Amino acid sequence: MRYPTTIQNLIECFNHLPGIGEKTAERLALATLSFDEETLSVFAKSLKDVKTKVKRCTRCNNYAEEELCEICKDKGRDSKILCVVENPKNIMLFEKLETFHGYYHVIDGLISPLDGINPEDIHIPQLIDRIKKEKIEEVILALKPSVEGETTSLYISKLLSKTNVLVSKIAHGVPLGAEMDYVDSLTLELALENRKKLSESD
Amino acid sequence: MRYPTTIQNLIECFNHLPGIGEKTAERLALATLSFDEETLSVFAKSLKDVKTKVKRCTRCNNYAEEELCEICKDKGRDSKILCVVENPKNIMLFEKLETFHGYYHVIDGLISPLDGINPEDIHIPQLIDRIKKEKIEEVILALKPSVEGETTSLYISKLLSKTNVLVSKIAHGVPLGAEMDYVDSLTLELALENRKKLSESD
Repeated sequence: MRYPTTIQNLIECFNHLPGIGEKTAERLALATLSFDEETLSVFAKSLKDVKTKVKRCTRCNNYAEEELCEICKDKGRDSKILCVVENPKNIMLFEKLETFHGYYHVIDGLISPLDGINPEDIHIPQLIDRIKKEKIEEVILALKPSVEGETTSLYISKLLSKTNVLVSKIAHGVPLGAEMDYVDSLTLELALENRKKLSESD
Repeated sequence: MRYPTTIQNLIECFNHLPGIGEKTAERLALATLSFDEETLSVFAKSLKDVKTKVKRCTRCNNYAEEELCEICKDKGRDSKILCVVENPKNIMLFEKLETFHGYYHVIDGLISPLDGINPEDIHIPQLIDRIKKEKIEEVILALKPSVEGETTSLYISKLLSKTNVLVSKIAHGVPLGAEMDYVDSLTLELALENRKKLSESD
């Protein structure tokens, strides 16, 4: 015996989502039975719209429903500083801090020759063009601290080395609140290398 | 900065689901962006249909899209045996075993005087009527081994004590594969009480 088609379809759709196994999918599908009609209709409509309405900002590649995303439409930001991130989700992380007031550029991937991903496959040429066109003065690279992330950061900084653009990279080190026992050796090595002077002379 | 409305709505809808926090909701909503159009349209349609198409079987209260559920429509089952379960999800558990071939009755809740749930609030009168009308010979109570479950089982068995219906309850004891150290004392007590003779005389 299987559930009625509608429930069975819902289970399969939930099961398509990352990290949602069969049992969880069943639980979630059955939970929608007790949703109110309004939530269900918003849920259904949003799923229908997600492919058609959600586009990428033509300037920074962030998610947008219009030509420009909310951040690019905001004229009150510092147009001299650009933070380079891997994907639109990363923008949200920085926005939650409420301390960064420049603009962003999403490159949508990282250079990875092993996976056949070259600089042209991600938005690096577009990034360089934008930096020149918008006369950006500082570029902050906020990419993942992995081999691919480091390669991409190095590549971008090399491309910009002959310009007057100041290129920096977010700091890597021991995260706050971490148990020293559990910090991996590579992170510890980086933390040691990038140590900060605390003496008065500083 | 927030995500575009469509994504924001999706995050809120996923967040409505049980066990899905804000971060997971965000991850799931973004994952739908890479779904193919067909899956998205099935997903959206099923959510829209779930309130209107999914009803309860008029005979056993299982989920159904027609008057009777798939199990009640199946004439090849043993019409003398009825398994009483708390909710439609429990039916699936028994169906997966493929060893039970009787019919089911969903009572949709358990008696709980503290929560104000009386026998009339769940489908017990309907169950008793059905047992009489369909001339059921054996009733298997498969309710949760909690205070409420035991109360409900006791109540149903008392109602049927003056009839010729054989009433049984599924066995409670140590589950297979369990570490003895972790079995709670109430389960152990039940397991001891319901011990089975292994001697030849049996």
